[in-house]
Amino acid sequence: MTEQRWLSPQELSAWKKFIAVVELLPGALDSQLQRDAELTHFEYFTLAMLSEAPERTLRMTALSAVTNSTLPRLSHVASRLEQRGYLRRSPCPEDRRATNASLTEAGWEKVVHTAPGHVDTVIANVIDPLTPTEVESLGFLMGKMLAKLDPENKFRARDADTEEQ
Amino acid sequence: MTEQRWLSPQELSAWKKFIAVVELLPGALDSQLQRDAELTHFEYFTLAMLSEAPERTLRMTALSAVTNSTLPRLSHVASRLEQRGYLRRSPCPEDRRATNASLTEAGWEKVVHTAPGHVDTVIANVIDPLTPTEVESLGFLMGKMLAKLDPENKFRARDADTEEQ
Repeated sequence: MTEQRWLSPQELSAWKKFIAVVELLPGALDSQLQRDAELTHFEYFTLAMLSEAPERTLRMTALSAVTNSTLPRLSHVASRLEQRGYLRRSPCPEDRRATNASLTEAGWEKVVHTAPGHVDTVIANVIDPLTPTEVESLGFLMGKMLAKLDPENKFRARDADTEEQ
Repeated sequence: MTEQRWLSPQELSAWKKFIAVVELLPGALDSQLQRDAELTHFEYFTLAMLSEAPERTLRMTALSAVTNSTLPRLSHVASRLEQRGYLRRSPCPEDRRATNASLTEAGWEKVVHTAPGHVDTVIANVIDPLTPTEVESLGFLMGKMLAKLDPENKFRARDADTEEQ
């Protein structure tokens, strides 16, 4: 048995603010997207990740990794997006046991029309409250946490520095 | 029409890391609590907030504010916690139209037994990856975002600095 550690007052103060943001931010993103595009943030993120992929297509397993989702959760959402005409699933030509997800033309249009309002929400809630130096600090601190939360870099967010945008 | 702003490469890098943490952290908290205490993080947080209240009792409206929840969501969770014997609801003596939620003795014991493992998870994922100065920065940055996300300070997280712990 090692001795139980507790949070210091400074740590507790930082933690309470952080968990408040972690709980409030998804609601802010969802509200805007639901109101303006009838999409959850996860649905938008799924379409956006496909929009950035070569030929706007990814294997479902790869799409679940980049959206940090389990395959069952992604399948459920993909099914809803397919019914709305934004996404199409088909057998992978290289491996018939695998399934590809592709963005349809309507899905591409949806991303193009939805992105501006979503980006405005991110800027208003996350970027504009901070100075450019603080935005850099935010990325640095989150990178350190991700090394623990996502040790295998499954979510690929730690690559963001080195990506060409 | 003002010109659409987009994220700069630096902003996009910080945002991608931040949203990854925002999506991954709740799962890490929930997994540990579900495995060790059969509680979601929201259920634990609800019990913990009551454990810190005078006489371990809060009006449901006040409890929904400090847990950043809507009243319907809180009522649903309170009902589950009541069935498990951790929480009790009763009419507020000062205002019969209002409902109080109180932590039972079993609920108090549950918090006491659950807190160490939860705190270990917070320390492992959030505190230990950072230096003490970085923890302070984290609190500062999150405070700035909260001023936008929670302008009325409903969630009370911005008071954390000045609270006696």
